[in-house]
Amino acid sequence: MRKFAGFEVCSIYDHSLFTKLGVHFFLWGGAIQFFGTKHHHDKWLRDTENYSIKGCFAMTELGHGSNVRGLETVTTYDSNTGEFVINTPCESAQKYWIGGAANHATHTVVFSQLRINGTNQGVHAFIVQIRDADGNICPNIRIVDCGHKIGLNGVDNGRIWFDNVRVPRENLLNSVADVSPDGKYLSSIENPDQRFAAFMAPLTVGRVNIAISSVYQSKVALATSIRYALTRRAFSLKQNEPEVLLLDYPSHQRRLFPLIAKTYAMSFAANYLKMLYVKRTPQSNKIIHIVSSSFKATFTWNNMQILQECREACGGQGLKTENRVGQLKGEYDVQSTFEGDNLILMQQVSKALFAEYMAAQKRNKVFKGLGLEHMNKPCPVIPLQLTSTTLRCSQFQMDALCLRERDLLNRFVADVSKCKAKGESNEQAFMMCYELAQDLGKAFSDRAIFQTFVDAETTLPAGSLKDVLGTLRSLYALICIEDVSFLQYGYLSVDNGANVRREITKLCTELRPHALALVSSFGIPDAFLGPIAFNWIEANAWSSV
Amino acid sequence: MRKFAGFEVCSIYDHSLFTKLGVHFFLWGGAIQFFGTKHHHDKWLRDTENYSIKGCFAMTELGHGSNVRGLETVTTYDSNTGEFVINTPCESAQKYWIGGAANHATHTVVFSQLRINGTNQGVHAFIVQIRDADGNICPNIRIVDCGHKIGLNGVDNGRIWFDNVRVPRENLLNSVADVSPDGKYLSSIENPDQRFAAFMAPLTVGRVNIAISSVYQSKVALATSIRYALTRRAFSLKQNEPEVLLLDYPSHQRRLFPLIAKTYAMSFAANYLKMLYVKRTPQSNKIIHIVSSSFKATFTWNNMQILQECREACGGQGLKTENRVGQLKGEYDVQSTFEGDNLILMQQVSKALFAEYMAAQKRNKVFKGLGLEHMNKPCPVIPLQLTSTTLRCSQFQMDALCLRERDLLNRFVADVSKCKAKGESNEQAFMMCYELAQDLGKAFSDRAIFQTFVDAETTLPAGSLKDVLGTLRSLYALICIEDVSFLQYGYLSVDNGANVRREITKLCTELRPHALALVSSFGIPDAFLGPIAFNWIEANAWSSV
Repeated sequence: MRKFAGFEVCSIYDHSLFTKLGVHFFLWGGAIQFFGTKHHHDKWLRDTENYSIKGCFAMTELGHGSNVRGLETVTTYDSNTGEFVINTPCESAQKYWIGGAANHATHTVVFSQLRINGTNQGVHAFIVQIRDADGNICPNIRIVDCGHKIGLNGVDNGRIWFDNVRVPRENLLNSVADVSPDGKYLSSIENPDQRFAAFMAPLTVGRVNIAISSVYQSKVALATSIRYALTRRAFSLKQNEPEVLLLDYPSHQRRLFPLIAKTYAMSFAANYLKMLYVKRTPQSNKIIHIVSSSFKATFTWNNMQILQECREACGGQGLKTENRVGQLKGEYDVQSTFEGDNLILMQQVSKALFAEYMAAQKRNKVFKGLGLEHMNKPCPVIPLQLTSTTLRCSQFQMDALCLRERDLLNRFVADVSKCKAKGESNEQAFMMCYELAQDLGKAFSDRAIFQTFVDAETTLPAGSLKDVLGTLRSLYALICIEDVSFLQYGYLSVDNGANVRREITKLCTELRPHALALVSSFGIPDAFLGPIAFNWIEANAWSSV
Repeated sequence: MRKFAGFEVCSIYDHSLFTKLGVHFFLWGGAIQFFGTKHHHDKWLRDTENYSIKGCFAMTELGHGSNVRGLETVTTYDSNTGEFVINTPCESAQKYWIGGAANHATHTVVFSQLRINGTNQGVHAFIVQIRDADGNICPNIRIVDCGHKIGLNGVDNGRIWFDNVRVPRENLLNSVADVSPDGKYLSSIENPDQRFAAFMAPLTVGRVNIAISSVYQSKVALATSIRYALTRRAFSLKQNEPEVLLLDYPSHQRRLFPLIAKTYAMSFAANYLKMLYVKRTPQSNKIIHIVSSSFKATFTWNNMQILQECREACGGQGLKTENRVGQLKGEYDVQSTFEGDNLILMQQVSKALFAEYMAAQKRNKVFKGLGLEHMNKPCPVIPLQLTSTTLRCSQFQMDALCLRERDLLNRFVADVSKCKAKGESNEQAFMMCYELAQDLGKAFSDRAIFQTFVDAETTLPAGSLKDVLGTLRSLYALICIEDVSFLQYGYLSVDNGANVRREITKLCTELRPHALALVSSFGIPDAFLGPIAFNWIEANAWSSV
């Protein structure tokens, strides 16, 4: 928990620093801890904590990113010398995007196929030293920089080739599988699918951290653009009247307040995710995988949407690097495709929900865990005419989100089963049903996030603070319900859709007096906001030149 | 037309060069030509063509961008010396974002309130020399750079303060109004609103150029990401089968082919807009204003969406600067807010359509010009059950787009009138109806763009080329009709919405064999595409380091 906190502060300050630290402590350090066993811990963890060695994480290759099982690096075992031999057999097998590799890392964890006596045992992880104490690249290793990127240039992403590099047998991180001195492959997990899953489970922390850092960038951008909109004026409505504050335009409120509600929702959900991770047990691996995948995708997409809206809401000022809002777009764009492409993560969420549905059928349709318990109850009913009171009721809001999740899961299962009945493989069936998979992932994520909002609200004593939070909660729920899926699949009538939009406008108006308090509560230090967040005229005065 | 063509080529090559040339030739040169009279033309145009003087365009101020009428720079006339005195009276009146001002420009057109004998005559334009032949800044003028931006750093945007700078009386660009040597204000246009409009009309060319350049960036990004998707593989569907090409995933087709259809549509529409501008007459000013505003907004929004999708579709490679796709995002982000914020432009379009509606009512509801003639006919009817044949019929597609435009215009007029009946001012009423204003602007734009697609298709002889273009035309129409507004306002039933989406998927599948030809037809030279557009493995091979 302390590590998360320190890490969060770094993430507000600088994305590259955050990423460099994350690679060293969470990926390299985490690999040693989770994939390794006691002798690895004893040998490497103290130096890792001290930063006297600098680790990186060589998983991705030029030809294989999201598809880790398809990695082409090959490792064999030489029982004569008791060494593993790691090799890059073709250009697409070069390690790519390895953060820290281009300049600073001294060691890396290499992910590679392990071939023992001609049998491929799948992906395993090995410790390899890549630089000596003087920073020289070790023999039989070639490294070059990945080149300039549109952001995150403070991270030295590198490409690595291994030319039959030899490492001692002990360098295999052997928590899941080992090779005996005479070259026998030993694993407590027989099934290669499960073995692979065991390898991937500890990587979840990367997704948790990315989700958390997204929330902070959204806060920086929103605090900057709301404060600007509270001082910047444009156009007067009548001759000789003063110009109108940007934030007094209903259109500007409609643009920014829903994003504040989203950011509050992401904050609560991020706290939930952190606790889920910190208190993890072997039993909670499944839900952590699903929640971290769906939150990582949702948060990072939200973050890019928020940054773009805020940049446009600041006009040209949003493009000045010193004002941060626009600059953060380039820095954080990577989030939607690294540590698992968002589209693929959402598909994994839907696949897991599919599996859960099938398992529930075997249990006589009882759902346990994953937040799907609502499916054990009768299907909620949306009232024919949605009044303002109903629209602001958290029970209605939850019902609407559960209704969508339930229906989309039923549709997804039906469509995938139909494809399979036609003779398609599992993967082909999922591939054909990609639209439902994405919609279902979103429905799961929205409902799970909303639950954390409701939980946070419940802890507050009655009073004006709870009232404002209730308004934000309604706004968050209604922008989820405004989503096109509610009309597309017929959960909302045209009239009720119009009622939802009207209520959103009213909620935005009600939040107008609280604008400054809402973004101040984000707690972003002044130094991390753009100068336009303060006195934008003073900041641009001749005296400041 | 020749100038447009040369300019288009520059826009593919480099956005900064394009902008620097645009500021000098179209804004500075255009101001001399359109706002000036013969003696200005004689004195300045030849040096402008030669580039022996370098012009810039000082309209925007720190405090006023889109609201040009609110500019705070003040000019008075001194009849004793026959000079105008130009002054920056406060910090918010400093000229801001003036392209070319920070380093290179020798002259500028200053937009300023003209105060004659205490009466403000509104915004006028004056020629001011800001640097001498040696590049030294002239007396009583202060200039500093606007600082680093997230893109377009090849343009030296500057800030300018004028400390009672004196220029001869002849430096007033006097096509619309003049001041006599003894200080009398003379104008052939009595109404200050009309005078202001006359000043703004020639600025349209900026919007025309921005719209055109957007189309090219979309082409670069799409050609790069489609070609990458034709060589990059990921995941196999069955064990021991080769991995699947990205473009063979239905989800990838669904992601990129609609963007190709959009880009074709924008191409045809851009050609229409160019001809409209080149063949302009005083009578066509209104339609040019509306079409250029709505196309500028639509094209630049589309462009940003296309660049973002393409960057994500290329995964991490989309972030490498050398691959261009991601880098273009930062370069072109400015387009949605410069030369008129897109939201404000769309509002202006709707205001103009509102005025046209009112004028038509006076003419017994007959619409003439602006493409609204369809409103003179009975309202089209959407069939209850949309078959594949109907969905691909251009008459149905046009009917659907006209139906939406007509209904939204009726709604907008009704809502604005309701607000005014309650005593709100014109501007207040438009402000309250901002959502309808945006929806209507989009409906106008989609219909107008679609018309140009249909016209282009008509010119082709029957054959396979026409067939493919027809498929693209249907895809473009259906992604317009898939827009949430068709469900929101009830133009499409839930079932028909599903039919539209199903047809879009089918159209994407049909276009798959033509993918390479479609992006090759964009005609972007290879040198302007990212290396991943070609052999992305070769480009990353060790031998290329």
